[in-house]
Amino acid sequence: MRQTSNNFTPVTQPLLSHIQKFTSIPPDKISLLEPFFEHKTYKKKEVLLAEGQRCFEKFFIVKGCVHLSYLRQNGTEQTVDFAMENWWTSDFSAFPTAAVSKFSIRATEHTEVLIITADRQHELLQQVPELNEYFHLVFQRAYAACQMRFRFLFEFSKEELYQNFLQNFPAFVQRVPQYLLASFLGFTPEYLSEIRKKYLS
Amino acid sequence: MRQTSNNFTPVTQPLLSHIQKFTSIPPDKISLLEPFFEHKTYKKKEVLLAEGQRCFEKFFIVKGCVHLSYLRQNGTEQTVDFAMENWWTSDFSAFPTAAVSKFSIRATEHTEVLIITADRQHELLQQVPELNEYFHLVFQRAYAACQMRFRFLFEFSKEELYQNFLQNFPAFVQRVPQYLLASFLGFTPEYLSEIRKKYLS
Repeated sequence: MRQTSNNFTPVTQPLLSHIQKFTSIPPDKISLLEPFFEHKTYKKKEVLLAEGQRCFEKFFIVKGCVHLSYLRQNGTEQTVDFAMENWWTSDFSAFPTAAVSKFSIRATEHTEVLIITADRQHELLQQVPELNEYFHLVFQRAYAACQMRFRFLFEFSKEELYQNFLQNFPAFVQRVPQYLLASFLGFTPEYLSEIRKKYLS
Repeated sequence: MRQTSNNFTPVTQPLLSHIQKFTSIPPDKISLLEPFFEHKTYKKKEVLLAEGQRCFEKFFIVKGCVHLSYLRQNGTEQTVDFAMENWWTSDFSAFPTAAVSKFSIRATEHTEVLIITADRQHELLQQVPELNEYFHLVFQRAYAACQMRFRFLFEFSKEELYQNFLQNFPAFVQRVPQYLLASFLGFTPEYLSEIRKKYLS
């Protein structure tokens, strides 16, 4: 298989590009990264992480989209978050110690990911400590997004939440199954369908 | 002034202890840290960061408690989060580029903090890149707490949110002004007072 000049396969290249947006890795260390990651593809609705199972891995989305959810008392799935290209996802309370996950992660479409376990990450960061800068900045951004989301949850009515979402993530609204988007926004699918009609007309 | 053997003043010691819980800094580099931080105290209700002003700084809480809020259209303050000892706080969307803050941060009691600007942090991380590991792990934990909070917001009724809060942070519930806790939980102060009576009796 033809590889790119830095020894990254086309599959791992998106991760390297993402890392290089945030930090610079010494060129001689770049080739160390690839073997630490497992490349995996999931079909729509396939499970990456199951609630109630130990969480050993975190996932970098190369292509596709996943949703993070938990099972309600009544047996329905509540979507708490989504992740798309260039986002990391996992249950980050469970990941550092391989504890039992409080969330499931499932593909909402055909999805390619790069996977690393906490143990392998520990080894990787010993060899390439520069990656801590990347993860520092990536988690800072993820936390900043949470701060804004908490503000939106207080500030906006349900209809305004949808409008805001449509304005900031138009491609995303087209892309994810509407019943998952409804769940994420705390709507019934019927209510989402109603306000969608309103904004499309 | 007598200093501790590692040249950290008693004021900076809590930060060093917190760093050392997450990572190890080479002993010869520890003395580099102190000059990067400004120590400041705030009286109850004093403002650390004002919504609408540029955000230059992030804050490590040495002692005390602050709340993060924004101004609603109707002129009342909505509390979005709190931070206490050993937490970092700021508007983390604004901090990296000194952008305009979408939040205010205000002391809820007499509060001591260590302050660093983004520019100074940049210099510090060049001299002590090991601190990226600390910030990686600190932001991972903060993001993990957000994931759980989103789950709680979907899962619990308002009364259950309060119960959960009381169970997990009993000292905290005693410590913060009740009208701020009510705001944070999305209650009216009257409703919080009602359910407090119920759980105290």
